[in-house]
Amino acid sequence: MKLYDAVWAPSPRRVRIYLAEKGIEVERELIDLRKGEHFQPPYAKINPRMQVPALLLDDGTLIDDSLGVCRYFEALHPTPPLFGRDAREAGLVEAWIRRIESDYFAAVAYVFRNKSPAFADRAISGEWPPIAQIPALVERGQQMAAAFAPILDRHLAASEYMVGDAVSVADIMALTTMDFALAAKLPDPREHPSIARWHAAVSARPSATAG
Amino acid sequence: MKLYDAVWAPSPRRVRIYLAEKGIEVERELIDLRKGEHFQPPYAKINPRMQVPALLLDDGTLIDDSLGVCRYFEALHPTPPLFGRDAREAGLVEAWIRRIESDYFAAVAYVFRNKSPAFADRAISGEWPPIAQIPALVERGQQMAAAFAPILDRHLAASEYMVGDAVSVADIMALTTMDFALAAKLPDPREHPSIARWHAAVSARPSATAG
Repeated sequence: MKLYDAVWAPSPRRVRIYLAEKGIEVERELIDLRKGEHFQPPYAKINPRMQVPALLLDDGTLIDDSLGVCRYFEALHPTPPLFGRDAREAGLVEAWIRRIESDYFAAVAYVFRNKSPAFADRAISGEWPPIAQIPALVERGQQMAAAFAPILDRHLAASEYMVGDAVSVADIMALTTMDFALAAKLPDPREHPSIARWHAAVSARPSATAG
Repeated sequence: MKLYDAVWAPSPRRVRIYLAEKGIEVERELIDLRKGEHFQPPYAKINPRMQVPALLLDDGTLIDDSLGVCRYFEALHPTPPLFGRDAREAGLVEAWIRRIESDYFAAVAYVFRNKSPAFADRAISGEWPPIAQIPALVERGQQMAAAFAPILDRHLAASEYMVGDAVSVADIMALTTMDFALAAKLPDPREHPSIARWHAAVSARPSATAG
């Protein structure tokens, strides 16, 4: 089994934090995104989606998605549960993961990929023909991130972690997305007090800096 | 417990198909999206995201996402498993659900919501300030859907269902997204033979027409 990993990028970081929270060690290979190693063989042949992370199993199966990799390990190592401790939490963790993805991660990606010349004709990550940048998406992404912050703050004012009083993959999604937003120079959502409290707490966990 | 449901729309249909495959019956209330009932009290107060589906639990918890609702029921009723039968399938089902969402559902939604005057200033579903339509997203969505179809066809040429030889939530995601694409008048991906074979098979299941 081998995990293809990369520094800095938010999706591989999700998996690193998840594995650190679970105490699972996996053989890893670093793909250098700045050098474009994901677009060239051998990696592009192993993973035609040309993204990281991906987990190659011993039987040749490739799981080519960050949360797919986490769900694989969760089924093998259910303790401590990171996708919810009961049915109610399982539903809420999934709902928050998907909301962070659609309402926040998408917003940051719009800003990140539709402006810089580095992503000209690569406005979407992955296995695509040339996809032109749309400057109006930068503005939409900024608008979405600004609208989402107070919603998230109200939620965290009433909840220690994203779902109740235990850390879950919903926190991992929110943390990696927020740090991605900060790196992409979006306005700092920690001006909101409950976001600031939560961000400090999850960032202080040893898993947050798993390298 | 009560499930808020709606006719036609792809997200509530996911939950109906899922419940039919599991043989689970739940009290339901229909929200009339054409009349805008989701934007008004009482529903907008129950679910500030102003979307369907949502599941209200007896303790007052609201699970406001289609797959969150499915994960809740899966934890309570694990048989037959619809999120994978083992760890490998659990990883692959999650990976395909997320790929359908990001590479195909997003494409159809771009086309559907960025053109029609009915969605002026509501270019994204949910709890948002006015979000302007971006005509260039119609073209990007068409380009994404066209690029994704042959990828999906190659996958289904080698796999009976989305993941192996058993139906899963990945099939439910793909079916509801494809039928949404057909309703939105995108080119019919059933020109690809393996997609045609798979679409006919999943559409023939009684769950596909669960009303």
